[in-house]
Amino acid sequence: MASLQFQLQATDGHSAARAGKITTDHGEILTPIFMPVGTAGSVKAVSQQQLKNDVQAQIILGNTYHLYLRPGLETLEKAGGLHKFNGWNRPILTDSGGYQVFSLASSRKITEEGVVFQSHIDGSKHLFTPENVMDIQRSIGGDIIMAFDECPPYPSEYKYAEKSMHLTHRWLDRCFERFNGTPDRYGYTQNLFPIVQGSTYADLRKASCEYAASKNAAGNAIGGLSVGEPDHMMYEFTQLCCENLPAEKPRYLMGVGTPWNILECIALGVDMFDCVMPTRNGRNAMLFTSKGVINIDNKKWEHDYSPLDDGIDSDISNYYSKAYLRHLMKAKEILGLTIASVHNLAFYLWLVGEARKHILAGDFISWKNEQAAILQQRL
Amino acid sequence: MASLQFQLQATDGHSAARAGKITTDHGEILTPIFMPVGTAGSVKAVSQQQLKNDVQAQIILGNTYHLYLRPGLETLEKAGGLHKFNGWNRPILTDSGGYQVFSLASSRKITEEGVVFQSHIDGSKHLFTPENVMDIQRSIGGDIIMAFDECPPYPSEYKYAEKSMHLTHRWLDRCFERFNGTPDRYGYTQNLFPIVQGSTYADLRKASCEYAASKNAAGNAIGGLSVGEPDHMMYEFTQLCCENLPAEKPRYLMGVGTPWNILECIALGVDMFDCVMPTRNGRNAMLFTSKGVINIDNKKWEHDYSPLDDGIDSDISNYYSKAYLRHLMKAKEILGLTIASVHNLAFYLWLVGEARKHILAGDFISWKNEQAAILQQRL
Repeated sequence: MASLQFQLQATDGHSAARAGKITTDHGEILTPIFMPVGTAGSVKAVSQQQLKNDVQAQIILGNTYHLYLRPGLETLEKAGGLHKFNGWNRPILTDSGGYQVFSLASSRKITEEGVVFQSHIDGSKHLFTPENVMDIQRSIGGDIIMAFDECPPYPSEYKYAEKSMHLTHRWLDRCFERFNGTPDRYGYTQNLFPIVQGSTYADLRKASCEYAASKNAAGNAIGGLSVGEPDHMMYEFTQLCCENLPAEKPRYLMGVGTPWNILECIALGVDMFDCVMPTRNGRNAMLFTSKGVINIDNKKWEHDYSPLDDGIDSDISNYYSKAYLRHLMKAKEILGLTIASVHNLAFYLWLVGEARKHILAGDFISWKNEQAAILQQRL
Repeated sequence: MASLQFQLQATDGHSAARAGKITTDHGEILTPIFMPVGTAGSVKAVSQQQLKNDVQAQIILGNTYHLYLRPGLETLEKAGGLHKFNGWNRPILTDSGGYQVFSLASSRKITEEGVVFQSHIDGSKHLFTPENVMDIQRSIGGDIIMAFDECPPYPSEYKYAEKSMHLTHRWLDRCFERFNGTPDRYGYTQNLFPIVQGSTYADLRKASCEYAASKNAAGNAIGGLSVGEPDHMMYEFTQLCCENLPAEKPRYLMGVGTPWNILECIALGVDMFDCVMPTRNGRNAMLFTSKGVINIDNKKWEHDYSPLDDGIDSDISNYYSKAYLRHLMKAKEILGLTIASVHNLAFYLWLVGEARKHILAGDFISWKNEQAAILQQRL
């Protein structure tokens, strides 16, 4: 059992894009990679069998906030961790819960100690601190666990962003202290990634990258982007962060994004992505395909019996027709939510897999530019 | 392309149970069989891949009322029928829509001609007649299609039941006339089954069996049971119908039932079953297993990490634990609905498969009696 290893396999000659291999005790992850979000121990509407066979997911996320509230730590600990609980035996990354505390909890109060919040489920009061969030994530059992941070909104005043970043850094120290002082829970190695903050201020982002890098962790994450800023700004700060984070560690851009966002950020040097977009938008009738974007509710698909997407290698995407999925969505059949979610995730995994192939083949940038134009088309 | 064939393979020495093989242009069905209900072209929350691989379904139902309203015949015809539309290439049986008109439509009026009803979706007015229901089912493209009947409620006065039965018989004549006067739609044979009515009156049931049998159809159905009468009455009239319907044709008992109902009715000579119970009850947290009935919402399953059911051969039933499914149901995760539905259907298919094995082995009755006691236990 060893810490997560990252092997850099290729760097693009015309961009900062990289291909690599992450090794964890639950198996390997080929990068760049997209990680489906398994909110409450389930990728919404998708079975673990579909995740393996159709989506070909290599790693999934668990949300600490959701899992802590439901089913709760006792259930997860008695199961032997989330892998045993949900039957996913490949790597799992857990977030720190901070983002959901700010976006979902019905009230919250930040102090130096941590965040007091009320559950969105039953209004019960809870406290997250850097220390107990490490303990909670160790109990959940992620292979990769994330530092507890504050994610400032966009836009944020410089003063607030600076103050918030320093709080995040002090919390980061506390996270590492607790993490290093506690053992792995279930016989495999857990790895803590720091999160860079600093809002949309270059000096803060740079300082935060240096602070994160100083922890010499197995990987580093970029937080606080894709929170409402324009795309060009997201790219600008992603680039700055990638340039200021160590090249020999995987870089994880949190919560991004559309397929074309992902392609651009791969070009900037990002290795890992997660986002609820493929599943959430899928449940709302928006399909990402290798030929462009589809609103499957549109009348134009009513008699289109062609496969959802024959340009990717996924049984479900090749099997069901646009007309059939449109019917299921119109009739509010649960199977429609499943098909749309599985397809979108399979498409995202196909996309990062193709990106990887082209990085290895040396023609990533020309492929990326061509694809970005195709994928954004509204069909 | 030939009419449906039924080969009687074995008859139990101690009961009227039979094992047989139905051959259709979309493949074979080994009886006794349970047919999952694919209401609007989708078995609720279950993918066609799961139906084949986990459930091992041999034939599914389509509901004429639902499919006629949504997606509508134009979409189904342009697809080349329901098999092409939903990608299910094994046999399909469609009901006549009559039952849904009475249970779902927001208003309905019965005349000699047929039934005028208002859609439960948009209130639009429609007319079902024996003739157009034949045309509609031909368009949907079932391998087996059902006669248009009136299903009287339980209890019904003798006079009403008798009048209703005669209307069903006059409609049956019109169904056959239309069916025989119209061609198969998509290059494979469609087969019309008459439906026996007569409520809970032995003389009516007997007369209705004789009327149905006189059509010399490829199979016969028993309707109007499992509509609220006590189980012993359902068994009494199922037995009477089985005894008065030809032995060389498959007998289909509509809308039945619990696992123990199915075992009893197999013993009485029924070959085919359908029911929404496994999927509907599954979505409401009730699991049928080889060890008894589970309410997965119960606190007692919170830390039970054993498989849902290791007594049957279904990947999903063996893979997910009771604690995990309970969590998914509590958290209202869509995957919970899928797992419960797939499991219950897999269990029903396992049950009829085991019944068949024991009929062939000659020890059906002793096995059935033992099973019926086990399966009804509340765990």
